[in-house]
Amino acid sequence: MSSNTSGMVDLEGGVTAAKGYSAAGIHAGIKKSSKDLAIVVSNPPAAVAGVFTTNRVQGATVKLCRERLRGGKASAIVINSGCANACTGARGIADAGRMAAVTASALKTAESTVFVCSTGTIGIFLPMDVIEKGIAKAAGLVSAQGGDDASEAIMTTDTGPKRAAVEFTAGGVKSRLGGMAKGAGMIEPKMATMLSFITTDAAVDGASLQNALARVVNRTFNRISVDGDQSCNDTVLLLANGAAAGAVLGEKHPDWPVFEAALENVAMRLAHKIVIDGEGATKFVTVQIRGAASDSDAEKAARAIANSLLVKTSWFGQDPNWGRVIDAAGYSGAIFDPDRVDISYDELAAVRGGMAAPGMTKGALAEVLKRKRFTVDVNLNAGAAETRLFTCDCSHEYVSINSEYTT
Amino acid sequence: MSSNTSGMVDLEGGVTAAKGYSAAGIHAGIKKSSKDLAIVVSNPPAAVAGVFTTNRVQGATVKLCRERLRGGKASAIVINSGCANACTGARGIADAGRMAAVTASALKTAESTVFVCSTGTIGIFLPMDVIEKGIAKAAGLVSAQGGDDASEAIMTTDTGPKRAAVEFTAGGVKSRLGGMAKGAGMIEPKMATMLSFITTDAAVDGASLQNALARVVNRTFNRISVDGDQSCNDTVLLLANGAAAGAVLGEKHPDWPVFEAALENVAMRLAHKIVIDGEGATKFVTVQIRGAASDSDAEKAARAIANSLLVKTSWFGQDPNWGRVIDAAGYSGAIFDPDRVDISYDELAAVRGGMAAPGMTKGALAEVLKRKRFTVDVNLNAGAAETRLFTCDCSHEYVSINSEYTT
Repeated sequence: MSSNTSGMVDLEGGVTAAKGYSAAGIHAGIKKSSKDLAIVVSNPPAAVAGVFTTNRVQGATVKLCRERLRGGKASAIVINSGCANACTGARGIADAGRMAAVTASALKTAESTVFVCSTGTIGIFLPMDVIEKGIAKAAGLVSAQGGDDASEAIMTTDTGPKRAAVEFTAGGVKSRLGGMAKGAGMIEPKMATMLSFITTDAAVDGASLQNALARVVNRTFNRISVDGDQSCNDTVLLLANGAAAGAVLGEKHPDWPVFEAALENVAMRLAHKIVIDGEGATKFVTVQIRGAASDSDAEKAARAIANSLLVKTSWFGQDPNWGRVIDAAGYSGAIFDPDRVDISYDELAAVRGGMAAPGMTKGALAEVLKRKRFTVDVNLNAGAAETRLFTCDCSHEYVSINSEYTT
Repeated sequence: MSSNTSGMVDLEGGVTAAKGYSAAGIHAGIKKSSKDLAIVVSNPPAAVAGVFTTNRVQGATVKLCRERLRGGKASAIVINSGCANACTGARGIADAGRMAAVTASALKTAESTVFVCSTGTIGIFLPMDVIEKGIAKAAGLVSAQGGDDASEAIMTTDTGPKRAAVEFTAGGVKSRLGGMAKGAGMIEPKMATMLSFITTDAAVDGASLQNALARVVNRTFNRISVDGDQSCNDTVLLLANGAAAGAVLGEKHPDWPVFEAALENVAMRLAHKIVIDGEGATKFVTVQIRGAASDSDAEKAARAIANSLLVKTSWFGQDPNWGRVIDAAGYSGAIFDPDRVDISYDELAAVRGGMAAPGMTKGALAEVLKRKRFTVDVNLNAGAAETRLFTCDCSHEYVSINSEYTT
């Protein structure tokens, strides 16, 4: 537990950190041996917000979630890993609906308030017999202690579960907000993210909840990149069930900034955990662009650098190869004068005025690259816009994982 | 030697295949042991055309070549590998000028007709003492047999030299056109390409020469991608010295199509050689998009697929992972209905109507992926536009090369 500036307290928990949530995560048999099916329950049913992939190819469950979001209420989420139920046509849609129906029946709740998410291989059908039995089993196991199991059951190539939670005071009561995420590969959420589920016992009106989620996702999950590939199943769901019995929060409530800060806290910690656990990643790198002529230019330069294979492999090699960084900025489409560019690695100047910084040695810079975390700061000196992206290196392990694993 | 449909004959030679060209390639000492300095001479001086990188960051030699191109004549090209002379400021510009001056002096030709190209590490200065001595030595060795040595001297991480030549009849005489290229990494020439030098003894007017080069580069070098990184030194120079003593060719001459076909023949062979020798590449893959709603959509889908790390690593793993292919098309920005997409690997249907093709097994598809060369054909069924890109897989070797080598 640690306390931060706004009086919030970071917690270790996940989706069951807040009151009124229970969960379970089990091995149903979709994958060979590890957990592959999770259920998260909110009692009472929660206000729900969602942000989804902008990929034109969308999994069946994304279509179902988008539709159910209109109802505004969630009593449960059922999630499987091992099969994405994407590119599965009408049968995929029917299977997603069936997952919701079976879950609703087992939990004795309204089917229209059950959300469904799938992650794993694209283009194969769900093994529905295994899934239906798994749902029945998991529904019998949900508990307020089940958040950890649930966070394990949604993993694919993740090397570990990703959870974060926070406690804050708003609407006259102490509330909690916690979440879990899965990441690893196919990560460049442009308008959405990988699977993430966040729950809070604060009471929040639906419109404010959706607005807050959209804003926070843009500042957190949308600022990370592992490999530049955007999944067709990216989904973030945020549930607020009011079980803390506080006043209903909305964007005009004086405590609103506290709530949104709590949401950003958890979303950012989960986003960072996705990068740290990026497939084969050995480095957590912050790409910071300053002095861009426009927000769009800052974004272009940051994405080009963060997604450059040459840049990412040089980080893996612990090589302060700033030539590849400035080269990527150069083809990004951002407008700037190469002769005015400054680049630093953490506290060390590598480039000044588009050339090697006077007096700086490759050996000194290489010391920074040996760190587990460092920042590459690129000042284009072309304006006042800036941005940051969180990314990782590209290692042998990434190639191994993705040449051997079928998405 | 092989004869093709238009009566052209493919030859094995390179930049000295055509009359009036001589060359040399030597070890000057920029690199530890391999050849690193080449000179190509045209006698008589040739009409010259050039296409350059569109990267905002441009090497000193690119700036010099752009300027000299206005003069329209080339008597020699001096090229070094091992140092890109990029991000080197005013000193870099002066060094490039000095390379041209020393070459002109050694060859007793006009400095304004000497072109300079550099490739290698970004951000370091040229070792001018070593280079000046190397130029003097190479100038004394130029010969009509020197094309092979020159093609070796321009390599960086290339595993072998890339040459191609052709013989054709135009303007009443037999002419030849030959070239060399270097490639390997930092390859996604968007409006230009890596270093390539093409020479012909045909006589061609300057404007037609430039137009032909621009068109042909768009159909050849601009259709390849190794890693999506665009170099800041990309250059193609085309010299036509008229030494075959034929009529002057221009876009309105009846033999013009023969000349442009000869140029495309050599440029395409060189471009394919760059892909085959892509850093760590084990597969040559043609990404073919059909049925796109627009040329721009076809291009977006092809680039997204060819540059997807997940797609490229699955090719390395010989895994017919079409889910990653359709996913990349989905986030490319191209507009299409995912439920109408068809995907084939060579002669085998993998996807029909956005789902796994009926009756097709993963095992059967995997047999195609074992081939050294295959085509991934994606029909978006959204219109009539189509395009092709030539690319390679991403292997452990790519990561090794680029985490250990400083560009």
